[in-house]
Amino acid sequence: MRIAVDAMGGDFGASPLVEGALWALKEKDFSLVLIGDEKILAPLIPAQVSKEVKIVHCDDFIAMDDSATAALKRKESSIYVAMEMLKSKQVDAVVSAGHSGATMSLATLKIGRLKGINRPAICTLMPRIDGNKSLVIDAGANVDCKPENLFEFGVMGHEYAKWILKYPNARIGLLTNGEEECKGNETSKAAFELLKTHPNFLGNIEGNNIFDSSVEVVVCDGFVGNVVLKTSEGVADSIVYLLKKYIKASPISLFGALFLKGVFKKLKKQIDYAEYGGAPLLGIDGNVIICHGKSNAKAMKNAIFQAIATIENGINDKILESLEKYKN
Amino acid sequence: MRIAVDAMGGDFGASPLVEGALWALKEKDFSLVLIGDEKILAPLIPAQVSKEVKIVHCDDFIAMDDSATAALKRKESSIYVAMEMLKSKQVDAVVSAGHSGATMSLATLKIGRLKGINRPAICTLMPRIDGNKSLVIDAGANVDCKPENLFEFGVMGHEYAKWILKYPNARIGLLTNGEEECKGNETSKAAFELLKTHPNFLGNIEGNNIFDSSVEVVVCDGFVGNVVLKTSEGVADSIVYLLKKYIKASPISLFGALFLKGVFKKLKKQIDYAEYGGAPLLGIDGNVIICHGKSNAKAMKNAIFQAIATIENGINDKILESLEKYKN
Repeated sequence: MRIAVDAMGGDFGASPLVEGALWALKEKDFSLVLIGDEKILAPLIPAQVSKEVKIVHCDDFIAMDDSATAALKRKESSIYVAMEMLKSKQVDAVVSAGHSGATMSLATLKIGRLKGINRPAICTLMPRIDGNKSLVIDAGANVDCKPENLFEFGVMGHEYAKWILKYPNARIGLLTNGEEECKGNETSKAAFELLKTHPNFLGNIEGNNIFDSSVEVVVCDGFVGNVVLKTSEGVADSIVYLLKKYIKASPISLFGALFLKGVFKKLKKQIDYAEYGGAPLLGIDGNVIICHGKSNAKAMKNAIFQAIATIENGINDKILESLEKYKN
Repeated sequence: MRIAVDAMGGDFGASPLVEGALWALKEKDFSLVLIGDEKILAPLIPAQVSKEVKIVHCDDFIAMDDSATAALKRKESSIYVAMEMLKSKQVDAVVSAGHSGATMSLATLKIGRLKGINRPAICTLMPRIDGNKSLVIDAGANVDCKPENLFEFGVMGHEYAKWILKYPNARIGLLTNGEEECKGNETSKAAFELLKTHPNFLGNIEGNNIFDSSVEVVVCDGFVGNVVLKTSEGVADSIVYLLKKYIKASPISLFGALFLKGVFKKLKKQIDYAEYGGAPLLGIDGNVIICHGKSNAKAMKNAIFQAIATIENGINDKILESLEKYKN
């Protein structure tokens, strides 16, 4: 199994991405291909593992403030080269922490969509209070969606949850502004009608239902999905920041907090996105994992594990079967 | 100053709403008019204050699963009667914890819009890490928006933040899926161009910027706004739930938590939506405060205080002046 890591374009540079990839290499059996500027990447690889890592040099990379369409022309960029390698079967999966729009555009253009899928989507895991995960699809790839796209997201998300996360009866919820069937915008109301053919469609859900174990699959467009992700991070970060600030403000609470170290550690582990790794780009005829721009080494390591699981489980065949079955 | 409280349609019935209204009456000088089923409301009012409270009886109310348009025909419903009283100047403001879409539709139809405003919007306060508040507009009134609507939301939100929250330089952010100017969906991109005329427009922001003190005013459509609110509540509730669960699971952490009671109390106060009361419906030619369906007594009390502040500050005149100034 050969996995290509686009090591450029992350918010914190190549260093944490390479570190995470090397961690993954220690734990699982696969071939690692790092794609990016050799001058930056080579010094990050310790001599004792340098023979196990292949570097494919690229001069260019897509920055976060570039437009996604620009990426289609920049053939020397790391993500372009990564997708060319996936297309020509030189690698079995691509993992990237760079510009997610660029990764999505290039994957769609170079690798192509699965039959019956109009818009591939990013599928992100979120923590639930019961310790399991819910899956938000689309988490940022498609900002303007049609009802058919949302239907496809539901089908893809269900198959991923069923086969990769091992939730055999994964329920699908349509994220809107109210649980009642009459709630929603024009697009979500039409998507509701399409999703009714799926036996695991629960109906409309609200933002809090992402976390309260009501559903396993949360369907929304990529604009809303991105807002959900960033809002969730913002709330969690704010609470952690305030807890620390208030604890530090008094010697008594500082003393008490010593006895709560285990509690804070468990909480941190449960809400830390890095535990979940990256997000598969579902709906393309290949295996692509997109990571958060702010990915640390642990997130990159777990993203590579996700890529391996996605390849091993043949998720694309499951999606094709299910689409055929529930298409309106 | 006469304030009408629609005491029907809240998720927990009339009891907490009436209780909160009575609390407000103890602290501020105004006339309270409760609107709803007399058989339910009268027993909730202690004999010693019954002379200070006027009940206007209604047989009907709009339930959460009714459609907003149905409310326009149900003349015997509590919110319909409340709006009629506001229209005919029998009261100076309406506060409701019922169906927000119905309240919005009736306010727009009965009271009418401010000149230059196409879509009134709900404006909700969110806690920030610095102890101040940011204001999300629209928080649920308009699920399908045009760029012009988002521009109007920005102008209205800025004036509310400036005059009522006393942030003289309130910055406006447009909530999208990325900070860069190229990010956003079709509607938000066009709204970005319109908002450029406003000197306090900062540009695109992401979900986490709602809490990190980047901006005071967060502009989005009501679909996204509602998702943001419910997601934020979901994350905060989940963290509190998990903290409690993990603390209870070990005697050592239970002991430590005794020393952190002050910390938890401060944190709870800062993230508790009830501290902020309700949400003004801005853009109509009158004063209407919409409360969360799950409002408790404290939230209702604070919502009534907001109604009083909105009347006292003449916010609608400020909005009219600002619209004239920045209109494209």
